[in-house]
Amino acid sequence: MNQAWPVISSGANPRVKAVAKLWQSRQRREEGLFVAEGWRQVTRAAEAGLVLRELYGCGEMGAMDSPRFADLAKHAGDTFDVSTIALAKMSYRENPEGILGVFVQPRWTVEDILGTPTLCCAEHGACLVLMAVGIEKPGNLGAMARTAAAAGASGLFVADGVCDPFNPNAITAGTGAVFTLPIAAADGTTLRTILRQRGIRMVLTTPGAKKHWHDIDYRGPTAIVIGAEDQGLGDDWLAETDGVEQVSVTMAGSGVDSLNASVCAGVVLFEAVRQRAAGLS
Amino acid sequence: MNQAWPVISSGANPRVKAVAKLWQSRQRREEGLFVAEGWRQVTRAAEAGLVLRELYGCGEMGAMDSPRFADLAKHAGDTFDVSTIALAKMSYRENPEGILGVFVQPRWTVEDILGTPTLCCAEHGACLVLMAVGIEKPGNLGAMARTAAAAGASGLFVADGVCDPFNPNAITAGTGAVFTLPIAAADGTTLRTILRQRGIRMVLTTPGAKKHWHDIDYRGPTAIVIGAEDQGLGDDWLAETDGVEQVSVTMAGSGVDSLNASVCAGVVLFEAVRQRAAGLS
Repeated sequence: MNQAWPVISSGANPRVKAVAKLWQSRQRREEGLFVAEGWRQVTRAAEAGLVLRELYGCGEMGAMDSPRFADLAKHAGDTFDVSTIALAKMSYRENPEGILGVFVQPRWTVEDILGTPTLCCAEHGACLVLMAVGIEKPGNLGAMARTAAAAGASGLFVADGVCDPFNPNAITAGTGAVFTLPIAAADGTTLRTILRQRGIRMVLTTPGAKKHWHDIDYRGPTAIVIGAEDQGLGDDWLAETDGVEQVSVTMAGSGVDSLNASVCAGVVLFEAVRQRAAGLS
Repeated sequence: MNQAWPVISSGANPRVKAVAKLWQSRQRREEGLFVAEGWRQVTRAAEAGLVLRELYGCGEMGAMDSPRFADLAKHAGDTFDVSTIALAKMSYRENPEGILGVFVQPRWTVEDILGTPTLCCAEHGACLVLMAVGIEKPGNLGAMARTAAAAGASGLFVADGVCDPFNPNAITAGTGAVFTLPIAAADGTTLRTILRQRGIRMVLTTPGAKKHWHDIDYRGPTAIVIGAEDQGLGDDWLAETDGVEQVSVTMAGSGVDSLNASVCAGVVLFEAVRQRAAGLS
């Protein structure tokens, strides 16, 4: 027996327009909201404990027939039954599944993340964070969040970010990791200052480095720093020497310019996990 | 001073139609050809020594004004000056750069790859290959090729493949790694038989494994086997015990289902590279 939710038929409805606007980065930032779309994303965001402000199901597509819808609606501020026309206006996907949620973005500060060691960090008494510098493709940022979460890192710092983790492509590529992983954004100068003050070593990945990624010790507090897709890390990073190590990941002579940013992050993060698990000597 | 190339104005020209057909996997397979698009891809494919059957430049977009065009044309079987209308018909991209090449696919057999140890493999006297099983997204296959190339692997085996490495998204995601890395496709049963006969240990990555990826020795001949995005490796793989090891990469308790296929490949491949570089004891 389905509860009757307020119906929205028109694609010109103000709520529909407001949701569609949230596909823009600026609008998300100003409102502190984001959209999760499809069963998997809406369920994961709700399970992560994020605040579900508005839930939209498409009755014409049978969304309300799923018992999962009633569960979600219990946690929602407002719930609506939208027409397929209205859904199409709100939807980012080509083939919408008939469900969409507007959530409040979780907010983390840099200090929150550094003060909340988790998983491998807690076990080993030293924080491990990933820093993404100037990443341009939302899909890469999402994939980096997924990788950091899988490695048990405390969080992700987005330095000099040109895309945000609640971009729909970042959510999809990260398979919802951005819902649970603490993420904070700041400019590179601020982040370098804070990390240095806290005694957290920055490990910069750059193709020109003499040391290999496995030549250094990751058991102390560590931030792994990955640069943008094409340019890599800029001089503002590479000129730093205090509290900084440079490492290369690509194998010399392989003829490949660089690794994908999330693969590079994975190789270095999991080397840190390996060293911490091994204890080393 | 530009050479005058034969002009193709009409989008209905048979050559234009033939190129457009190559965006289909089946057509690529039947003809043994593929399309590289944009300056970067066409240049890389040519530099990799692949046979450039046809080169298409758009004079209206200034393609022939670049000295690079004349260099490429020297290596091309046929060269044409196409109109923007014809180019749009041939192009896979939304914003074509005005240059496009039809290349002959490089052909490798499984035996070619196993008989051609390169880079870290040659140095250490033991082959290292990546095997992608049932990968569905061309972008993931391309990213895996890029990762394998960066790690200095001898090649990539595509087992039970549902997409091919010359899909335009695979080429883009791999930043052209598919032009240089030896790649061979076969069914899983055949590949398991050959690898076992050759004494190459298969390391299967699966979330349920008791051993961690860093618990085993990769210094002998090794094939690292990565399953499809959602399902992972099937029972036909997981039931194997002869010459096979299972390892997990995701950190226990991290709450993340799995790593992206190319990140998972990177973590394990570079652990092999690390062990081989270290020599270990």
